[in-house]
Amino acid sequence: MRVYESTPVMPLLGGGDNRLFVKRDDLLPFSLGGNKVRIAEAFLSDMKEKGKNALIMYGNSRSNLCRVLASACRADGVPCLMVCSGDPDHTSLKTGNSRIVSLFEVEVISCAKNAIAPAVDEAFARLESRGYDPYYIYGNRLGEGNEGTAARAYAASYREILEDERKLGLHFDYIFHASGTGATQSGLMAGHLLAADEKKIVGISVSRDRERGTGIIREGIRAYFRDCGLALPEGFEKEIELCDSYLAGGYGKYDGEILEVIREQFRVNSLPLDPTYTGKAFFGMTKYLRRMGVKGKNVLFLHTGGLPLFFDALPDLADGKEK
Amino acid sequence: MRVYESTPVMPLLGGGDNRLFVKRDDLLPFSLGGNKVRIAEAFLSDMKEKGKNALIMYGNSRSNLCRVLASACRADGVPCLMVCSGDPDHTSLKTGNSRIVSLFEVEVISCAKNAIAPAVDEAFARLESRGYDPYYIYGNRLGEGNEGTAARAYAASYREILEDERKLGLHFDYIFHASGTGATQSGLMAGHLLAADEKKIVGISVSRDRERGTGIIREGIRAYFRDCGLALPEGFEKEIELCDSYLAGGYGKYDGEILEVIREQFRVNSLPLDPTYTGKAFFGMTKYLRRMGVKGKNVLFLHTGGLPLFFDALPDLADGKEK
Repeated sequence: MRVYESTPVMPLLGGGDNRLFVKRDDLLPFSLGGNKVRIAEAFLSDMKEKGKNALIMYGNSRSNLCRVLASACRADGVPCLMVCSGDPDHTSLKTGNSRIVSLFEVEVISCAKNAIAPAVDEAFARLESRGYDPYYIYGNRLGEGNEGTAARAYAASYREILEDERKLGLHFDYIFHASGTGATQSGLMAGHLLAADEKKIVGISVSRDRERGTGIIREGIRAYFRDCGLALPEGFEKEIELCDSYLAGGYGKYDGEILEVIREQFRVNSLPLDPTYTGKAFFGMTKYLRRMGVKGKNVLFLHTGGLPLFFDALPDLADGKEK
Repeated sequence: MRVYESTPVMPLLGGGDNRLFVKRDDLLPFSLGGNKVRIAEAFLSDMKEKGKNALIMYGNSRSNLCRVLASACRADGVPCLMVCSGDPDHTSLKTGNSRIVSLFEVEVISCAKNAIAPAVDEAFARLESRGYDPYYIYGNRLGEGNEGTAARAYAASYREILEDERKLGLHFDYIFHASGTGATQSGLMAGHLLAADEKKIVGISVSRDRERGTGIIREGIRAYFRDCGLALPEGFEKEIELCDSYLAGGYGKYDGEILEVIREQFRVNSLPLDPTYTGKAFFGMTKYLRRMGVKGKNVLFLHTGGLPLFFDALPDLADGKEK
């Protein structure tokens, strides 16, 4: 596994008062692409740096990260175990991502969303009893202590975006993206703070409310700068923009407007979006730009992938009436 | 719609006695990728050159070409009608590709596989009655007269492969690919004949027997050279290598061995293959190389895409017992 040079940046039709572009991280050529390819790479290289030899990952049945980590572990010969929340019987909710995790014959420990820590303990115990020294992607049993690692991926990617600008001879005023775990947004923000440039980064939240999500992103940025041994610019917190106005009821929920935006983007721009992450974010971006009266700007949408979720939604998209 | 610079070429693990590489045409950044992106581009530019203003396409529910043409027509504002064979009620066999065609709200005329010509007539009549001058991708009502156009795509792509070799500093002795309509193989062969090089191009047939398929590829090459006003090298027919030993019963049929190769390639090389085209071809390639005793060669597998078919097969791949 390695992250390839650079993903394409393409202009989009239908930008209205602004010029819209998309960065196709969904086309990263590993495990069906997406931002999690870069993030998994950051976790696995941290695992190796720390001398660990097995991986414990955490997510739900729709998790793109678990799909990519399962691929990467198999390719690298690293034993891997998944702690899967929110679905008491992992096999009951079949999604593209859960099927791919099955394809990799990953051992799954199911747990309730409020009982992750004991499931992580159980995962450690199982792997240790087999003689492994496991690495948990989110740090300790409470999911703390590894906030800076995931941010590395998009801190590096931010420099790729600056290089894209140079190649294309234009400047992006805004970068929009789906914000879930906060790893992508922390990374982009870290890159932005290191570059000390004028770009505005807007995460469209797909799950958390603004306050909680912003706190997590702030900690991610802090941890990254700490890991780098760098001081943070004063007042950096004020620049974190996480918009929670388009949650459509919460994680994994969506409505007819979101489906219609996905149909439209696939039809007009050939973009495969999904209702859990990228479709919700694209919808939020268009609403945000209108509400804030943004005009005449160059706006980059970072396509963070999740192709299996586009295919999960395809029956709804194609056959569904105007829901 | 436009075809982007160059698709990645990546080394594959598990090549055995040879060094295996893959060219990721599945990552062409339009309409979920695949060889049909290049081929659709060739058809649509021919349509425009001929001054036509509506498109009639032909395929079945699994057709990748119809999916891409539906995308391209919608993006370009060209009215498009599909003649769909092999499935009396198009809506009965739901596949990823047929759902995407529905998503584009394409008008479909269903017909039996032995009654395509009258359905094409009907499609012409409908579009003409609305004031359009339609273009049928395969020429006349019998599907003849446009053999050279589709070959253009991979004749051009062959030059891209030569450029890939230059960049990578290596020489491919073989190119393997799934051979269905013959358009890709005719094009690669035309490129090879124009370059007058030593490469061996092997199509693994996914539907036709050797004799019939070879005849169609030969006519494609002839038509391409005629369109270019060039003379064909004598004895070129002998170089056409279409292997029909791995049909697994015919078009769309597959067995447990093919599924196992698909699982293996996804696990080891993160390649999404499908049982109708690319998985069958990859399976055939590995068998062919062993049977012919090929050793120490650089072998390129052209990944011709068809991602929706990978997702169609995913339940079988993940949940199926050793079929």
